[in-house]
Amino acid sequence: MHRYRSHTCGALRESDIGAEVRLSGWCHRIRDHGGVLFIDLRDHYGLTQCVADSDSPAFEAVSQVRSEWVVRIDGKVRHRPEGTENDDLSTGRVEIYITGLEVLGPAAELPLQVFGDQVYPEETRLKYRFLDLRRDKLHRNIIRRGQVIDSLRRRMREQGFFEFQTPILTASSPEGARDFLVPSRLHPGKFYALPQAPQQFKQLLMVAGFDRYFQVAPCFRDEDARADRSPGEFYQLDIEMSFVTQEDVFQAVEPVLRGVFDEFADGRQVTQTFPRIPYAEALLKYGSDKPDLRNPLVIADVSQEFLAEGVTFKAFRGVIESGGVVRAIPAPGAASQPRSFFDKLNDWARGEGAPGLGYIVFEDEGGALVGKGPIAKFIPADVQAAIAAKAGVGAGDAVFFSAGEVLKAAKLAGAARLRIGDELDLSAKDRFDLCWITDFPMYEWNEEEKRIDFSHNPFSMPNFDHDAFLALDPADEKTILDITAFQYDIVCNGIELSSGAIRNHRPDIMRKAFAIAGYGEDVLEAKFGGMLRALSYGAPPHGGIAPGIDRIVMLLCDEPNIREVVLFPMNQRAEDILMGAPSEVTAKQLRELHIRLNLPEKPA
Amino acid sequence: MHRYRSHTCGALRESDIGAEVRLSGWCHRIRDHGGVLFIDLRDHYGLTQCVADSDSPAFEAVSQVRSEWVVRIDGKVRHRPEGTENDDLSTGRVEIYITGLEVLGPAAELPLQVFGDQVYPEETRLKYRFLDLRRDKLHRNIIRRGQVIDSLRRRMREQGFFEFQTPILTASSPEGARDFLVPSRLHPGKFYALPQAPQQFKQLLMVAGFDRYFQVAPCFRDEDARADRSPGEFYQLDIEMSFVTQEDVFQAVEPVLRGVFDEFADGRQVTQTFPRIPYAEALLKYGSDKPDLRNPLVIADVSQEFLAEGVTFKAFRGVIESGGVVRAIPAPGAASQPRSFFDKLNDWARGEGAPGLGYIVFEDEGGALVGKGPIAKFIPADVQAAIAAKAGVGAGDAVFFSAGEVLKAAKLAGAARLRIGDELDLSAKDRFDLCWITDFPMYEWNEEEKRIDFSHNPFSMPNFDHDAFLALDPADEKTILDITAFQYDIVCNGIELSSGAIRNHRPDIMRKAFAIAGYGEDVLEAKFGGMLRALSYGAPPHGGIAPGIDRIVMLLCDEPNIREVVLFPMNQRAEDILMGAPSEVTAKQLRELHIRLNLPEKPA
Repeated sequence: MHRYRSHTCGALRESDIGAEVRLSGWCHRIRDHGGVLFIDLRDHYGLTQCVADSDSPAFEAVSQVRSEWVVRIDGKVRHRPEGTENDDLSTGRVEIYITGLEVLGPAAELPLQVFGDQVYPEETRLKYRFLDLRRDKLHRNIIRRGQVIDSLRRRMREQGFFEFQTPILTASSPEGARDFLVPSRLHPGKFYALPQAPQQFKQLLMVAGFDRYFQVAPCFRDEDARADRSPGEFYQLDIEMSFVTQEDVFQAVEPVLRGVFDEFADGRQVTQTFPRIPYAEALLKYGSDKPDLRNPLVIADVSQEFLAEGVTFKAFRGVIESGGVVRAIPAPGAASQPRSFFDKLNDWARGEGAPGLGYIVFEDEGGALVGKGPIAKFIPADVQAAIAAKAGVGAGDAVFFSAGEVLKAAKLAGAARLRIGDELDLSAKDRFDLCWITDFPMYEWNEEEKRIDFSHNPFSMPNFDHDAFLALDPADEKTILDITAFQYDIVCNGIELSSGAIRNHRPDIMRKAFAIAGYGEDVLEAKFGGMLRALSYGAPPHGGIAPGIDRIVMLLCDEPNIREVVLFPMNQRAEDILMGAPSEVTAKQLRELHIRLNLPEKPA
Repeated sequence: MHRYRSHTCGALRESDIGAEVRLSGWCHRIRDHGGVLFIDLRDHYGLTQCVADSDSPAFEAVSQVRSEWVVRIDGKVRHRPEGTENDDLSTGRVEIYITGLEVLGPAAELPLQVFGDQVYPEETRLKYRFLDLRRDKLHRNIIRRGQVIDSLRRRMREQGFFEFQTPILTASSPEGARDFLVPSRLHPGKFYALPQAPQQFKQLLMVAGFDRYFQVAPCFRDEDARADRSPGEFYQLDIEMSFVTQEDVFQAVEPVLRGVFDEFADGRQVTQTFPRIPYAEALLKYGSDKPDLRNPLVIADVSQEFLAEGVTFKAFRGVIESGGVVRAIPAPGAASQPRSFFDKLNDWARGEGAPGLGYIVFEDEGGALVGKGPIAKFIPADVQAAIAAKAGVGAGDAVFFSAGEVLKAAKLAGAARLRIGDELDLSAKDRFDLCWITDFPMYEWNEEEKRIDFSHNPFSMPNFDHDAFLALDPADEKTILDITAFQYDIVCNGIELSSGAIRNHRPDIMRKAFAIAGYGEDVLEAKFGGMLRALSYGAPPHGGIAPGIDRIVMLLCDEPNIREVVLFPMNQRAEDILMGAPSEVTAKQLRELHIRLNLPEKPA
């Protein structure tokens, strides 16, 4: 018989009854039922009930073991006594009568119980992560994470992609966040940087003629912790492809993401054809470029309505005449809500810095739609009807208004949309609603500096005839501010999984794009010099995307905190309190790296 | 039609003749055959011949393009003219008659030609890596690397292993090499380290109850460059498993390695059942714990023979009497070699610090085996015969002798074995000879400090009854020096792919093992404190291994330099001269990280 086990703890079935077997695992739960001892023996694969009574030659040994000791158990498989079967457990119809027990690894007193649902402080959980990882939920999350990554890899290969490893010790990148630096021993005063993303390397791979790249890529940003981002490192499904349009990227990536969500949805519904929503439309209808489409509410623009003849509500008119807008957020069924519902929303809006959240409640009065509420009297019936129509509401519903400068009004409307959806419990449950956001503006007006600036990613290809772009007059602000980029986001349930773009692969267009934004060659050279040179030796059109793997796993595991889906996360202060990182180093190490400490002065 | 291509450059066949197609790719080779222009268009998938004559509407455009420009070509598929087919090429029976051409990415004058076999200095190749990667051999190596990794992953999953991601920003590890350090912004004066290997994390995973771990793991060591190791980072197939004996590790890993070698051997023969050679036997028979088994020579110990009555060769007798040994290296067929062959070997041995390399040449004289050469006359015929029998040689062969202290004699014999094998061209070609080396000694005698010390890895489990080990008297040197560890190496063609071990999972045995080697609790705590605590909360027996992926790929690609199988390697001075790493950073960055530079003084 094998030194440690003939079966795993998840393997035994009724068909094994009578067999002499050997299991090894952790003592999950130990019970003494009037002189009969029960051990639920646990390993990675499952749980098996083991029993010893005073007739067992192992009784004495069994009576010594404690929770979480690792033991080897020899015994005979038998039926559980009638009425004690547990069909929730794959091994639940059998038990082992223990004839021998060997302690393989005893356990000291536990700072964290593995069995049961007791809640522990995060510091305890991280310090004893190896115990926390034995607990069922975290164990399952980590396995789920691995399965998701395997599935992503398989699906990427099915789409003709190929995995590569790009360097981790590399140069500072122009991603914009703070780099982690690594002092060089051989080059005094110089530093490597850990990649914020393999962006430049994947583009170089396209220039090198590898057609379809992907990587489950570790990325590093020295930023403060957030619930959905580990301090330090995170993983993205990094993708790039050559000779493609934006449509090709969508066609390649959509089946991968749909497939992985479908595979791990556990009955939750997944968008089968991802809607494509232009940025401007998303901002109008959802007040966000990360719309949560589980929320059914659609915002409408009612600026024209508030300018209509007979409307005497001057506050909104004033907003519109000075270039602003009025947005209407429907609140289906809200007419039956108490006054406090409306007051609370109004208070919330003030807390967000808005003057308030005006509203109309629609009621049916003898077949006619009649608006009620503080501002209804300033709006003639026909305009009320037009507003209701635009907002898609009727009797029994309400509309709220967000007025102001376009972007501010849109964002407030978006926040109100989410809030109203929550308050009225309108959002669909158990669904993964995915969409593409497209047509991001290439440039925006920098009001402070009174000049045109890049809006999002300066390295995306403008959606504009190349020759016409090269010929653009930088003073032609109207044309320039209307230019969109081949840049897109993929969003799930209001969470941005990734940005992506068709890259600007033409050095001449890149130079022009930077010139339009008022940047000289020097800025371009500093940010992108190496890449620009590479692009000048025969570059293919290319584009890609890089969905965040941790976020996908968080969604699929329904976990709001990234530390529930990462094996050994750091705490919020970027410390690994289990292994003791970061830690002090020796004077010799510092000397070898040509650095010395520059510590903040201690308060006296 | 698609914006860039209807087919890839490797797709078209005779069945496509007559079709209007669109290809995009790089102009691999451009030829002008008397007014008829040929472009070999290349992409990741293949090469397609495209033709334009002066009747083509694209003739003018075609005549403008140069090597490595990226172009889109429209045209009609037709037969190549009879006699010009190229069956080495998958597309070699067809060509495209060009009707349209668009330049997608022009190329500046090339510092490195993609077409052809011109050799370039390494600095040029690394600076223009994106061009070098377009060249056929490097392109193929990188794809092969990816295929090998895919295959390893698939085979590991088939063995029931599961992939995990362990942290890259972590604490300094006790592996022994120099760490790369990352200064912490949030914790002044403290540093993260990049992992030399995920050794501690994989052991923690076993303690956490995950049964079978693997990872294609990036590892980091700040060591100077070698041909077979990149400065900086490398990848290993990191493996760990619970509730296993050494035999289980062999049974799990052998099919994975045999499988991947078989899959990519291209007709080269692969060991089907890996021999297991105890360390002591390897040292005797091959003079090395990394034997190249393609070399058929087997070393024999002939110490007893040189002590036999009638032997008057005093130098060897003296060596043996002072505790040394004499080893015999066979040299089949060497009798026909000129005197210079023997002189060269002797000179080489002196260069290695030995007094020389004695030998006997055996000849047949009337049916009797007769030894010739400088020392034969000191050895009676019967002893000569015994030596010949032990070394497995006969008439027409020779034996060489290596005499001295055991380890030195073994190593010289091992080096002579390789040299003789090379000189006589005895080694098998086109073969991957894999073997396990087992039973490494746990301890060795430290002659300088006159004490017992660890021989290899202090964290391996001794192959010794646990209770008896705990009871060992540290003064019982003879027993202790005979203890072997459950530690093993996997070797291919004389290259160590990895060490591995059954780990010491018992804190009490660990403490004893360190005490025997004279180390106090403090040393153990400093080197292994966190892990030791983890082992005290219920640890399973576990073990693993971590074959080097870069080395496996080098073997399969038959490349002696690791830079031929890595995408973006650093140069020997640990610089990435393409992206400019390492580089200077700003004063602000240094301030944020609480460090300042400590530069060596410049020579006056």
